Order: sequence, then C-alpha cells, then structure tokens
Amino acid sequence: MGVVLPFEEEKKPDSSKGQDAFARLTALVDGDLARVNDCIIRRMESPVALIPQLAGHLIASGGKRLRPMLTLAAARLCNYDGDRHVQLAACVEFIHTATLLHDDVIDESALRRGADTANTIWGNKASVLVGDFLFSRSFELMVEDGSLKVLKILSRASAVIAEGEVLQLSTANDTGTTEDQYLEVISAKTAALFAAACRIGPIVAERPVAEEKALESYGKNLGIAFQLIDDLLDYSAKQATLGKTVGDDFREGKITLPIVLAYRRGSEEERVFWRRTLEELDQAPGDLEHAIELLTRHNALSDTIDRARYYGTMARDALALFPETELKKSLIAIVDFCIERAY
Amino acid sequence: MGVVLPFEEEKKPDSSKGQDAFARLTALVDGDLARVNDCIIRRMESPVALIPQLAGHLIASGGKRLRPMLTLAAARLCNYDGDRHVQLAACVEFIHTATLLHDDVIDESALRRGADTANTIWGNKASVLVGDFLFSRSFELMVEDGSLKVLKILSRASAVIAEGEVLQLSTANDTGTTEDQYLEVISAKTAALFAAACRIGPIVAERPVAEEKALESYGKNLGIAFQLIDDLLDYSAKQATLGKTVGDDFREGKITLPIVLAYRRGSEEERVFWRRTLEELDQAPGDLEHAIELLTRHNALSDTIDRARYYGTMARDALALFPETELKKSLIAIVDFCIERAY
Repeated sequence: MGVVLPFEEEKKPDSSKGQDAFARLTALVDGDLARVNDCIIRRMESPVALIPQLAGHLIASGGKRLRPMLTLAAARLCNYDGDRHVQLAACVEFIHTATLLHDDVIDESALRRGADTANTIWGNKASVLVGDFLFSRSFELMVEDGSLKVLKILSRASAVIAEGEVLQLSTANDTGTTEDQYLEVISAKTAALFAAACRIGPIVAERPVAEEKALESYGKNLGIAFQLIDDLLDYSAKQATLGKTVGDDFREGKITLPIVLAYRRGSEEERVFWRRTLEELDQAPGDLEHAIELLTRHNALSDTIDRARYYGTMARDALALFPETELKKSLIAIVDFCIERAY
Repeated sequence: MGVVLPFEEEKKPDSSKGQDAFARLTALVDGDLARVNDCIIRRMESPVALIPQLAGHLIASGGKRLRPMLTLAAARLCNYDGDRHVQLAACVEFIHTATLLHDDVIDESALRRGADTANTIWGNKASVLVGDFLFSRSFELMVEDGSLKVLKILSRASAVIAEGEVLQLSTANDTGTTEDQYLEVISAKTAALFAAACRIGPIVAERPVAEEKALESYGKNLGIAFQLIDDLLDYSAKQATLGKTVGDDFREGKITLPIVLAYRRGSEEERVFWRRTLEELDQAPGDLEHAIELLTRHNALSDTIDRARYYGTMARDALALFPETELKKSLIAIVDFCIERAY
C-alpha cells in the first residue's frame, strides 16, 4: 500500500488560472458564444409553452456551455471565418441538454427507495418528452446546416452516448466493475460528445483529416479527464465547501473510478462495507464519511486525479500540429481548468 | 339529445375484411416487410446487451408494423423499384418504437398513486435510454440513406411528435379540454409520423410534389382516424372481449374525444363525476362501468366512430390521383381496417 496522501493536501496550483482560461477562451471566440445563446433561445421555442419553460430552466441554469465552446474554439483554431459553427454549437448543446434531462429521470426502484428527485418540478414524463423535443430539434438544425458528414458524426455520437448510459445502468450497483468497463462507460457517455463537438470545427473549416483527428483526440481525452474529475468531485471536500452536494453517486450505488480502485485495494471487511452500501444500498448515517475515509486511505482519489492528468496530457499533445496561438494556449488551459477543479 | 344508440349494436360490417386487407397489403409489397424486419433486427444490435434485449422485447411483441408498411406501400404505389424504402421503413419503426418506450415511462405522481407500470421489467431509466438509442440509430440509418429531404421530414416529424406528447401532458386531467385541443394532440403525436411514413414513398420514387402531398394527406387523415379509434377502444366492450385491458386512459385521467364529448353533453352531476374521476383521480370500483354508461348514453362512442369515418373518407379521397390498382385498393382497405377495429 502506498503512502497515504489525501488529495486535498496536495500542492495547490492557482485554480483561478483555470477560471481565467475559460473567460479568456470566451473572449477569444469573440461574440460567438453570445450568438450560440441567442440561437439556443430562439430555437427551443415551441407553441407548446411547457417546452421552452422546462428547457429554458435547464439551459439558463448556469451551465458553462463547455461543449458548444469547444465547437466554437475548434472552428476558430482552424481559421474558420463563416458562421455555421454557431448553429452547430447550439446543436451540440441541445444534445447535451437532452441527455441531462433524460439522466434526471428517476427510476422506479429509486423512487420506491424514496430517493431525492432531480426533476421534482415537472415530473419524469415531461423531462423525457422535452428531452426528445430538444434532440429532434438538434437534428432539424443539423439538417438546415446541410452537411451529411456533420449529421453522421452527431447521430453516431448520440447513439454512442445512449449505449454508454445503458452500459452504466448495467454496471450500477456492481462492485465487480473493472476500470476498463468504467472507462468504456465514460468514453461513451461523456467523451464521445466532447470529441464530436471538437471535430465539427475542422469540418466546417474544410481542413485536412489530420486536423479533424487531432481535434477529435483532444476532445475525447479532455472528455475522459473531465468525467474522471466529475466523478471524483462527488466525494470531494472541495465540492462540499462550494455548497454543492456530495455523495449523490454513493447514494445511487454508482460505480465510479474512485470506488473501483478502493474496492480492489480494500480488505475483505472493507469490501463487505462497499457491497452493503453500493450493491444492497443499505446505507446508514456516517457511511458516506466512512467511504471518503476509505477512498483517501487507498489513494483512490489522488490516483483518480493522476489518471485524469494522463488523459489531460494526451489532450494537450493532440494539439501539437497547430501553431502556438492564443487560442491554442486557451484550449490547453481548458484542460488544466477541467483537472484543477479537483483541488 | 340524439337517439341512444350504443356503438356495439350498430350494424356490423364484416370485420375480417379489415384483417384480410392487412394480409393482402403484406402480400402486395412482396418480401419487403420481411426485409424491413431483417433490417430492424440487424440494426438494433449493440455491444451493450440490454439494448437488443429490451428493444427486441418491444419490437417482437406482435406489432402490426403499420407505419413501416405505409412507407413500403406508398413507395410501391409510386412504382418505386429500388430498395431505399426498406431501410427508411425501418427508420420509421425505430422512431415509433422509441416513442412507445418513452410513453411507457411512469411519472412520479403516477407511481406514487401506485398505478400499474408498463415497464416493470427493466424500469424507467432503461426505457428512456434504449428509446434514445433507437432514435439515434434511426437518424444514423437516415444519414446512410443520404437524403437531406428525408432527414428534414423525419426530424420535423420527431419534433412534432414530442410537442404533441408534451401538449397531451398539459391537457391530462383537464376536463375543460376542447375537441380542437384534442385534435391538435393526436395530429401531432400520431398523425405526423403516419404522414411522414407515407410521404417517404413518393420521395424515394422521385415523383411529383402532387403525389407527395396526396400520400402525406392520406397518412395524416389515416393517422387521425386510427388514433380516434384507439382512444375509443379504451372504453370498448369489443376490446374487453379480446382480452385487452380497458380503462387505462380512464385510470390515468387522459382526456380523449369520447370524454370531451360526454363531458360537454353531460349534466352538472355527471360533470362532477368526470372531475372527481379524471381530475382528482379519485376512482372507486364501478366508476369505469359508470363512465362507459355515460359515454354510451351521450353517443360519445358512436360519434367518435363517426369522426373517424370522416377522416377516413379524406384519407381515401387523397388517393384519387393514383390509378385503380390492387395496391391502391389495399391502402383504402387499410383505412376500413383501422376504423372497423371499433366494432
């Protein structure tokens, strides 16, 4: 067993740098992000009032627009000077919002356990149907754009996301989940859309395949790093100090990398604890705190950050063939930003 | 108040004629339907086993494949001799299956009332995600086909279906729903896909716009007639004798045309009954039987059949510009089949 080094105590880089990176990127894509927001608001309209109400609630609720931002920045990095990237960035955000709405759907079993519901305002059914609307609308916008290549990439990404989400459902509450299976889930449910969002940039700019592949790889690896950190934050003291909820994944019995690592490294007694809490969902007060203690004891949290750094390095390297511009620096800073959220 | 004439006692046409019509149409499109089934089974494959399991369960469960059949027949009616219509018919069925899966999602409130669940085997979340997969896969197949015009029609239809379903959600439990609102709901949630399915035929056959419009109109009016009868069957003695459940809409408080008519025509005492059972969902044994009695007393069921006949007539007339072939006769017989299900 390695040295116990809780990730919270690692040397802290200046995490405001990460925040700045996001603001800098927004400035570099000029007014594009504002135009994406306009497009989103205009195109989620429907004569059925509940649709813009519900979609607007989610879209307005302070998301960073990371995915559409990637489409905008990738297009600019490829010196694109048209405006197709704006509408396609909105498509990417619609797909993301649709998956968020569908993610919020409460399973019957979860409900029966009396778990908290993320969609208490409008209910399951409205979340599903408005998600379907946004998804369809996204395809309508792509068809307006008229590129079969873009349609192919985003319809493929959508199918892969759904496959990833179903796979995640199959591994839920299974402490036997391997790191490979976990990586397969997050590559599909998260990284596929990051990759597609980035790849659209060189496509609208009509750049060579090498640039498409480079930006796809940047997006894919950034997406994996992003999700690794996201899963870690669910057990993070940092997250708690920001007033965000901690332990949602734990309560649902979701098997993320910190759990995979701690379970593998744990004693038989610890495994009994993990099986009780995550498989049988038999949880008592103090269990979450004990889980965090075990994750820390086995370096599961700091090693998850290390894994994220590894994918972050690949994301950075993928951009090697682009000249050293401010935009490229910003895209690299975004990688740091996604990882530095952890501490 | 008109003469009391329960629809069950109307003169019965030979309803086996309708069944025959379906078999005849299947024969006329030759092996196309079998090829659609092959395509469906091949293309719902996924490395994630739960996807073909769940999708297969629904797809295999004895649906008539009415919608893909319309695409096949419309293409043949337009003398199409290629094979694009097979894959596009599978797209139509995938969209339909996705909406069925999403329809099955139980609302939290419904669950809390302890209502029956239509998706008890796999749960809400799997239904949503597998529906998303089929929906995405449908777009992948369309992109393979490569027609932006088809993509536009089916992405529009998908958005309209979602709008219709959300609108239906808004009118649920509202006894003040008007016939116009009801028609708006079923035009969107059902007739839009029937219309799109039919319109694909003349498009792949590269026929003039007049034929596109004719078949679109046939599909739309057939779809409305079909849904009117479907909603009626939920209160039908015929349905009960077939061993199918009756009263699902009643238990959910869904406001369909029979209810709209009976509520409007009812006494204040009867309206109190409808509001208690459908708005407050305060239902007791015997209430469904009383509801059927009121529907019969006010001719709400027989008048719903009359409305369906009206749309059926428009569907038939829409085909006037096509020559009198066996295929056209079969498409007209399908209209009869959809309406004759009622008695």
